Amino acid sequence: MSGNTFGTLFTVTTFGESHGPAIGCVIDGCPPGMELSEADIQPELDRRRPGTSRHVTQRQEPDTVEILSGVYQGKTTGTPIGLLIRNQDQRSKDYGNITETFRPGHADFTYWNKYGIRDPRGGGRSSARLTAPVVGAAAIAKKWLNQQYGTVFHGGMSQLGEIVIPFQAWGHAAGNPFFAPTTDAALIQQLEDYMDALRKDGDSIGAKIDVVASNVPVGLGEPIYDKLDAEIAYAMMGINAVKGVEIGAGFRSVAQRGSEHGDELTPDGFVGNNAGGILGGISTGQDITVSIAIKPTSSIRTPRRSVDKDGNPVMVETFGRHDPCVGIRATPIAEAMLALVLMDHALRHRAQCGDVKPGN
Amino acid sequence: MSGNTFGTLFTVTTFGESHGPAIGCVIDGCPPGMELSEADIQPELDRRRPGTSRHVTQRQEPDTVEILSGVYQGKTTGTPIGLLIRNQDQRSKDYGNITETFRPGHADFTYWNKYGIRDPRGGGRSSARLTAPVVGAAAIAKKWLNQQYGTVFHGGMSQLGEIVIPFQAWGHAAGNPFFAPTTDAALIQQLEDYMDALRKDGDSIGAKIDVVASNVPVGLGEPIYDKLDAEIAYAMMGINAVKGVEIGAGFRSVAQRGSEHGDELTPDGFVGNNAGGILGGISTGQDITVSIAIKPTSSIRTPRRSVDKDGNPVMVETFGRHDPCVGIRATPIAEAMLALVLMDHALRHRAQCGDVKPGN
Amino acid sequence: MSGNTFGTLFTVTTFGESHGPAIGCVIDGCPPGMELSEADIQPELDRRRPGTSRHVTQRQEPDTVEILSGVYQGKTTGTPIGLLIRNQDQRSKDYGNITETFRPGHADFTYWNKYGIRDPRGGGRSSARLTAPVVGAAAIAKKWLNQQYGTVFHGGMSQLGEIVIPFQAWGHAAGNPFFAPTTDAALIQQLEDYMDALRKDGDSIGAKIDVVASNVPVGLGEPIYDKLDAEIAYAMMGINAVKGVEIGAGFRSVAQRGSEHGDELTPDGFVGNNAGGILGGISTGQDITVSIAIKPTSSIRTPRRSVDKDGNPVMVETFGRHDPCVGIRATPIAEAMLALVLMDHALRHRAQCGDVKPGN
Amino acid sequence: MSGNTFGTLFTVTTFGESHGPAIGCVIDGCPPGMELSEADIQPELDRRRPGTSRHVTQRQEPDTVEILSGVYQGKTTGTPIGLLIRNQDQRSKDYGNITETFRPGHADFTYWNKYGIRDPRGGGRSSARLTAPVVGAAAIAKKWLNQQYGTVFHGGMSQLGEIVIPFQAWGHAAGNPFFAPTTDAALIQQLEDYMDALRKDGDSIGAKIDVVASNVPVGLGEPIYDKLDAEIAYAMMGINAVKGVEIGAGFRSVAQRGSEHGDELTPDGFVGNNAGGILGGISTGQDITVSIAIKPTSSIRTPRRSVDKDGNPVMVETFGRHDPCVGIRATPIAEAMLALVLMDHALRHRAQCGDVKPGN
Repeated sequence: MSGNTFGTLFTVTTFGESHGPAIGCVIDGCPPGMELSEADIQPELDRRRPGTSRHVTQRQEPDTVEILSGVYQGKTTGTPIGLLIRNQDQRSKDYGNITETFRPGHADFTYWNKYGIRDPRGGGRSSARLTAPVVGAAAIAKKWLNQQYGTVFHGGMSQLGEIVIPFQAWGHAAGNPFFAPTTDAALIQQLEDYMDALRKDGDSIGAKIDVVASNVPVGLGEPIYDKLDAEIAYAMMGINAVKGVEIGAGFRSVAQRGSEHGDELTPDGFVGNNAGGILGGISTGQDITVSIAIKPTSSIRTPRRSVDKDGNPVMVETFGRHDPCVGIRATPIAEAMLALVLMDHALRHRAQCGDVKPGN
Repeated sequence: MSGNTFGTLFTVTTFGESHGPAIGCVIDGCPPGMELSEADIQPELDRRRPGTSRHVTQRQEPDTVEILSGVYQGKTTGTPIGLLIRNQDQRSKDYGNITETFRPGHADFTYWNKYGIRDPRGGGRSSARLTAPVVGAAAIAKKWLNQQYGTVFHGGMSQLGEIVIPFQAWGHAAGNPFFAPTTDAALIQQLEDYMDALRKDGDSIGAKIDVVASNVPVGLGEPIYDKLDAEIAYAMMGINAVKGVEIGAGFRSVAQRGSEHGDELTPDGFVGNNAGGILGGISTGQDITVSIAIKPTSSIRTPRRSVDKDGNPVMVETFGRHDPCVGIRATPIAEAMLALVLMDHALRHRAQCGDVKPGN
Repeated sequence: MSGNTFGTLFTVTTFGESHGPAIGCVIDGCPPGMELSEADIQPELDRRRPGTSRHVTQRQEPDTVEILSGVYQGKTTGTPIGLLIRNQDQRSKDYGNITETFRPGHADFTYWNKYGIRDPRGGGRSSARLTAPVVGAAAIAKKWLNQQYGTVFHGGMSQLGEIVIPFQAWGHAAGNPFFAPTTDAALIQQLEDYMDALRKDGDSIGAKIDVVASNVPVGLGEPIYDKLDAEIAYAMMGINAVKGVEIGAGFRSVAQRGSEHGDELTPDGFVGNNAGGILGGISTGQDITVSIAIKPTSSIRTPRRSVDKDGNPVMVETFGRHDPCVGIRATPIAEAMLALVLMDHALRHRAQCGDVKPGN
Repeated sequence: MSGNTFGTLFTVTTFGESHGPAIGCVIDGCPPGMELSEADIQPELDRRRPGTSRHVTQRQEPDTVEILSGVYQGKTTGTPIGLLIRNQDQRSKDYGNITETFRPGHADFTYWNKYGIRDPRGGGRSSARLTAPVVGAAAIAKKWLNQQYGTVFHGGMSQLGEIVIPFQAWGHAAGNPFFAPTTDAALIQQLEDYMDALRKDGDSIGAKIDVVASNVPVGLGEPIYDKLDAEIAYAMMGINAVKGVEIGAGFRSVAQRGSEHGDELTPDGFVGNNAGGILGGISTGQDITVSIAIKPTSSIRTPRRSVDKDGNPVMVETFGRHDPCVGIRATPIAEAMLALVLMDHALRHRAQCGDVKPGN
């Protein structure tokens, strides 16, 4: 495989480029008999969609999803589910000079060197637009996991640049454009101002996102290599612009003592969750907690040094629509990846061990 | 698959438990015609071996590797390479009460809940001893990568608990028991004292490890899902006790601006390496830089609360041989995982795109 | 995986049902830089298309293919190639009683028992219509193999029911509706009459199809399990209605002596080809020769006994458009499957052993 | 993967060469909690073992299997099961001239051309000896399938050269050296004489083997590509020397009419079994019936023309121990492959659809 399939038993094979005719995916392995229609998928796509606030790209894409297969009379049949999203706002501008220049921080240089050819229109396949089909597929996984185990997913931004966002409640993340889990109006205003200043500067900024899965069955994950945390790390690091992944205490573990880190157990369950819900690569039934670091958007208006494909020095400036912080739209994507990993491992567990046990 | 195979084209399938008759692996996909003998593999195993200093487990294991197949007249034949390491120091003590108790921070609870049975002897399959076959397999990968592209691997400890270890040179890592890349004698002494105090306290501590691959070809990695960084994250998070993974600037990216983070290019190459040698999931030819967070050893002498398999409260104390910092022996393991990922992607690149280009 | 992906390195993941909105596939792993447009794919689809003679189903489907991704400025980019074929002639008739009845020889009974639900419209996913995306994908494989190695594919019918069709030349197969490799007009007329009689009887008949690949590189195939012949057998037996597969001498080998079967070598090459171009699971560079047995169409007008989903006895008669011999359209499909297997193994060979050698 | 792993969820990864230190395998995905010891595996290895009659190779190998992992206190733990069989009768004779000559009908030519190197000792990895680990792994699959569903496997020879062996009962196959399912003493004598004459001639002969699985659950198999029959064809064609595979009516289907071939259903079940227990790639619950064609042994005493690695003409004669009919020992191997396929699909079915239904 050339890597465009995500998952082992619940697989999502995607296709498409940012400015091609369409993007989409084939979802294989979905259990049969679950009620499913576009109405289950579209809301997740809408959460991820561009153009929802002034802080994200203004590309106009309804991202309307069409189910092409795998559903009969409103229920999944167990055969592959094809999802199709037509691209609508592919601006047919002249990409001439971009095609021969490598933008700093972008995949231009590496695609060119790997393939000897690249589709420069909107970043081609390296565009974050390609997260849409995955988010669509994850909507199906989320529904199944919720029906089977009551699993729910939450996420939000915990840091924007230097600004730390103290957690209040996941429910608040839907109430502001940043997916910040807070109702602190002053803080939200601070984030707005920070973004406005960045845009004015023609610069961009990184972010930290947290995601959590609750009501996860005990026993998901394979003990070596395909550990649940290893697969989550793979899924998260594979999201565009992610440079770091933590499970549970993450890098705080470095300075922790064993007497502090190791979560004790009592008859009422685990006392803490430094483990992030995973021990020995297998879910404990506690919340699975993940944090990711997202680098600043590479496309900025500030001119930057680069080379063209012949190695000549050039200056690169980006015009047009771009997010100053790609992290803002990352929350639904990170939730989606976590859902896909759990779905996959739920099926893998059933294969070897039969049905899973409910979590704590 | 139940997850015990690492890799896609250069695959390592391991077997074994800490106190079973033997551990080992089958390596499939090795290119034919490379000179190979146990002498290529044993030195890497010796770097990882227990008992090499007073700061690590005193288990006595020569870890002698035997090549069972795939080599004829000193050269690889292209058929699977079987590696076998007999366990020698399996103490046949009574594991009675451990078998029914879940040690905090260990995989006891999750194995029991997943499988309904577990091998408690020395941690069974969840033991760090199971990294030995992988280190053996990686020795083969390292040799091939070095012959083909001149790729070399380095690694060392950058933090032990609160003690940050400033980097001097990779070569120094072999000169002390901590794999600390420094010749600062006072610092080494500080680390020794720190470990001694921990052991006296019956406690343990976390660590941060850095690994680097140099002379990496341009173009390794698949653009979506099986990105090079995603696979490195999977490989690293799959190492026992790892809770966090960073590529390049990692979590520092959160507070970086795009004008700072995005590595500019000049005719002489990239100006910086915040990317950690990977853009859009594909190697740039720069050094690949990875950091991992390792949690403190879960087995400590300090008594801790837990439950037995029937949910009754118990106190757990660990006696016997254990590392107070599992991070100390993690450097050769992390290098090994990085080597396996690069080897796998070198072959994947050949499949789709033909031979790779040398790095910068 | 739930099995809807064909191949290991050149993968084809299909979706769709006979009467759903669309069928299609995602092709992953195609080498970059090859010229490709719909014009390369459509002719192969047209060979397989229904309605081309009075002896095959009269369903009216233009089977127009659209490339959704993976091609930029007329060349493959190395990213997944999405193919889409809209279904046009999905008759929205009442499938009411068929949905609850298991037609003899069809997948109705097994789908129902496996999934607890099935899409009865035109056979759903078990329809031979689902070979269209594979034939499309194989057109890409054929083009690449031909450009790289000069590989060409031929096929035709060697037996229709009791009528044996002596081979004259592959080129003749395009000159009659049966893909019979002959210009024997009397024989063709005999086949026509035979089919007309069958249709009048409301019955159907089996067929034997031969396919051949020429100019195949030496060295394709893995020695154990993923042998080239094993994968061809898998590919062929996976075609709808196939009940037997032979490589080279096939079942004639049973009564052959070693002194007759084993193909001798001279400095001019192999003297015979009982091996069918494969020894020890690896291609010899000779023609790869395959024969398949195709069962008679299960849908016939003759009433047959069956049961409904509650186990009650019913009689089943099929009306509407159906092929009395599904074998007639099988030739392009069998060629396609052979091409996909060779393509996959060409890439696998490159991964482990570097570029392949030309065949004899 | 380089193909040395069999299966998707119940995987068997083998290693070893005919005359290397050892052969063996790693079995991954075995459900936990099943009682298992060497005593479950050894009898199946003994059925396949050489030297059991004067009609098969006289190599002296006890084929003693050692379980290296995955079992604790007599039960499977869900972790990989390592099996090891030391080679004992590796004659260290001079293979000098064989190493440079390609024996007709053997893999010598193709290994050499693929890898540029080959292990000539006893055929290296292409030896039928490599079926031993698979037979060992299948013993585990057979036990599990039997415990879960009551599945049983039978097999025997139905044709030796021109001699057809009429079926009486599977139980008789154990009563003669040919696995002939008959008690016809005259026929057995005829087979003995036939083999003696062949040996005297220095020649060899093909055979046809039938295998059957009974009490198979309904619903095993994936509808497209990984169909149950496709995977059986892959498994069977992958056995050394197999040139043809049939499911159910097989090549007889070619001349059958639909009214004859399609198995009718009544409230008491299917009326016939032309389908061989599989419809649309999914098991019906009936017996799964498979036939395979095995070519004559390639190693014969009769001198044959060939070339050396430089293309010079040579004559090849084989001395030493060889089976004049490799088909004689093929029955337990074919049963083993069938068991592995069913085991794999039982787990795959559980993953997507939950537990399977009992067969008819």
